[in-house]
Amino acid sequence: MSLEPEKQVDAPAAAAENESDVERIAADFDRIHALCEILEPAFPQIEAGTPIEDETLRVKFTELSSLLAELHPADVAAVLESLPPRERNIVWLLVAPEDDGEVLLEVSDSVRESLIESMDKDELLAAVDDLDADELAELADDLPHQVVYEALQTRDEEERAQVQAAMSYEDHQVGAIMDFELVSIRADVACEVVLRYLRRFDSLPDHTDKIFVVDENDVLQGVLPIRKLLVADPEELVENVMSTEVVRFRPEDDAEEAAQAFERYDLVTAPVIDGNKKLIGRITIDEIVDVIREESEADMLNMAGLQEEEDLFAPIWDSVKNRWMWLAINLCTAFLASRVIGAFEGSIEKIVALAALMPIVAGIGGNSGNQTITMIVRAMASGQITDAQAWRLLKKEVGVALANGVIWGSVMGLVAWLLYGSFGIGLVMVAAMTLNLLLAAVMGVMIPTLLEKNGRDPALGSSVLITAVTDSGGFLIFLGLATVFLL
Amino acid sequence: MSLEPEKQVDAPAAAAENESDVERIAADFDRIHALCEILEPAFPQIEAGTPIEDETLRVKFTELSSLLAELHPADVAAVLESLPPRERNIVWLLVAPEDDGEVLLEVSDSVRESLIESMDKDELLAAVDDLDADELAELADDLPHQVVYEALQTRDEEERAQVQAAMSYEDHQVGAIMDFELVSIRADVACEVVLRYLRRFDSLPDHTDKIFVVDENDVLQGVLPIRKLLVADPEELVENVMSTEVVRFRPEDDAEEAAQAFERYDLVTAPVIDGNKKLIGRITIDEIVDVIREESEADMLNMAGLQEEEDLFAPIWDSVKNRWMWLAINLCTAFLASRVIGAFEGSIEKIVALAALMPIVAGIGGNSGNQTITMIVRAMASGQITDAQAWRLLKKEVGVALANGVIWGSVMGLVAWLLYGSFGIGLVMVAAMTLNLLLAAVMGVMIPTLLEKNGRDPALGSSVLITAVTDSGGFLIFLGLATVFLL
Repeated sequence: MSLEPEKQVDAPAAAAENESDVERIAADFDRIHALCEILEPAFPQIEAGTPIEDETLRVKFTELSSLLAELHPADVAAVLESLPPRERNIVWLLVAPEDDGEVLLEVSDSVRESLIESMDKDELLAAVDDLDADELAELADDLPHQVVYEALQTRDEEERAQVQAAMSYEDHQVGAIMDFELVSIRADVACEVVLRYLRRFDSLPDHTDKIFVVDENDVLQGVLPIRKLLVADPEELVENVMSTEVVRFRPEDDAEEAAQAFERYDLVTAPVIDGNKKLIGRITIDEIVDVIREESEADMLNMAGLQEEEDLFAPIWDSVKNRWMWLAINLCTAFLASRVIGAFEGSIEKIVALAALMPIVAGIGGNSGNQTITMIVRAMASGQITDAQAWRLLKKEVGVALANGVIWGSVMGLVAWLLYGSFGIGLVMVAAMTLNLLLAAVMGVMIPTLLEKNGRDPALGSSVLITAVTDSGGFLIFLGLATVFLL
Repeated sequence: MSLEPEKQVDAPAAAAENESDVERIAADFDRIHALCEILEPAFPQIEAGTPIEDETLRVKFTELSSLLAELHPADVAAVLESLPPRERNIVWLLVAPEDDGEVLLEVSDSVRESLIESMDKDELLAAVDDLDADELAELADDLPHQVVYEALQTRDEEERAQVQAAMSYEDHQVGAIMDFELVSIRADVACEVVLRYLRRFDSLPDHTDKIFVVDENDVLQGVLPIRKLLVADPEELVENVMSTEVVRFRPEDDAEEAAQAFERYDLVTAPVIDGNKKLIGRITIDEIVDVIREESEADMLNMAGLQEEEDLFAPIWDSVKNRWMWLAINLCTAFLASRVIGAFEGSIEKIVALAALMPIVAGIGGNSGNQTITMIVRAMASGQITDAQAWRLLKKEVGVALANGVIWGSVMGLVAWLLYGSFGIGLVMVAAMTLNLLLAAVMGVMIPTLLEKNGRDPALGSSVLITAVTDSGGFLIFLGLATVFLL
């Protein structure tokens, strides 16, 4: 790791010589962005590998190279994600080939695709050469088949089997995020022996907080936390020190459920076993952190009706494709709402005030419904809601809607009365707002509950759906009541 | 930990005897919910501590106690969060007093308040008695002052100072999540000596993946990763094995920025130092995971206009209070939109079709604006956007809006033309939809950028704000164009 991030006092005297690392990296990023913008016109030369003729540009180019050389691959990934295509390619050309694989692992899926497209087969093979089996498997979906095939030829049989095993699981399964680098021992040896055994390694796998205890068939017997090993009597047998109460996972388990277990039980690593209880791999907290981040991002994107994480600087057409489906659905629902209004054109012609007041009824329903649905999607994500709960929540949300309806309905009813001088319009306003808030509450609970019950993501487009219901419903209720009582 | 969660094959033969732990815990939760519902009428007796007369209820009560006794405190916390008030209190009464503190740490803020309210001073003092200094500091804000005061009296001076230090930081600062339990050593001793020193501990602090190396003034010199210690030559001095490139934090640092560093550099623990580089504590990944989860939840809640995480079963009135502000803001903006329409009542009277078509223009703008704003809030949360980026993003979003406007505008323009037999209405529809999508794109980039620039949370009510702009704007554009060109 290339950083020496000294966190310092913010006192003005110290600030100049002692930036905090957060500030330093932010400054590096800004400088890199500035350099990239300057170098952008020289992209064709840089890409072709011809020397840059312009003296100033050449200096900038050297500065950019040395700035990038000092960055951690994860920081390089962040830089790449924050740049438009041509500048991204300049930076990518400057990344040291031995870091290519690491950087590819760190960037988002959409940016990864764009980077891989810019590389030829030999560059790709060199990039994945240093990767572990689980890392190669993670990239494999995005790599050309030929590259995966040739990369596998250079691995031994065990690693090939591991890559293929990892690739056989879906992205959301534990199998797709497990790694195969782990240390295992037998139960019938002394702690002293374990310590001597460990000393024979050049280095232990990342995040090794526990050693897995297995029998002669690799069946998991327990785990020996390093914390316990270090304080144990050297003469003591592993079987007397190890924990047998272990949170284990199966490769088919849902990664989000594994993440919940990691959060609840504060785990750093956990074993993955197959159907015969044989130890086949482990999950580490760094992968789990990614799962948590991706899951909550996906919920947010899904609620807003974006299909997937979007490359900030994706070509316009890619963005249009990523967003078109929910826009189309929204247009259909808006069209429906429009037809509801169309059915009451006669009423609106007689009382044109209705046209001005109807969006208020629809709007408050949409806002309130979104509040309800967001709360429920969040509670579902943290596993708090069971079926029995849904019914009770419904009762509570109906209560909240009733209270809000009476309060805000009365306020707007009064305003409408004063504005249009018609007590009737005021009353219809109160009734319509209350009813639409009730509708929003009921649908706000039902939409995510039904989506989840049918095995769908409860967040998926829920915001668009609830707005559809409260718009059409709001117009229907308000114009319907007005037609019945005011005409 | 009380679980022995054996993950098993789902084969029907094995299923009966070998549930997976996820299924088992889900089954336990369901049973607990069912028992609580049955016991709810007996709440007064249970609370008063009088024996339950009814034989059946007494049996259920015993079953509930033993189910709860087997759960991990984090699971108990999840159960409590998923229950309505009276049933929550029954479960809370049954939690072993020695677990009370742990459970209080695990539950959400809103549920914590409700649990603390139900306890008297002596119960609270007993609950916090076993907690570490950092844990006591975490609860302190929610505890009555007298309880905090008395709890501090039982601690030694060092711990008191730690609690007070931790309490002096804001929730979003590193100081509020750091803990004080850590192992530190000197640089000039052999690894052998370190191993012997560690063996004198009864147990090492949780998540000990590295030992902190300090000088005689507690100034941080480096860190000795346990992974390196275990493979190092026992004779080797710590100073030759330790890493001096360390990611350090200061207690005033933003916890979200610390979380980004943990994610990027795959950290498990990191030292916290004061202005003189003295080691004062450490941050652990479990706290960081909570920060990540809370941060993304807060973004989601804020976008929907919920002030804070809400107890699912909060009394109706508490929920009304949590939601009223954004509903009120929404009503104001809806009222504004209504007045925009009101200004065009004359046009609507003449062409009543306008009333039916205008929500389509407003709706697609709101939907598209929400897509843009969500993408940007997400990119800001992961630190991808700098000021220079905002301008480029704006150009891209305008391009996307233009493409969508031409495509979807034409579709709806055609529909409007066919429906109302007026080519003019169709043309106005195309123009209005395109313009409103452009407005949505511009505001979708500007609202979060300006909020962030002014030090506000970019997610805060952004969904309500963008909808406000695209509603009023959409009505104004559509009715304005119609008035100018069709009348």
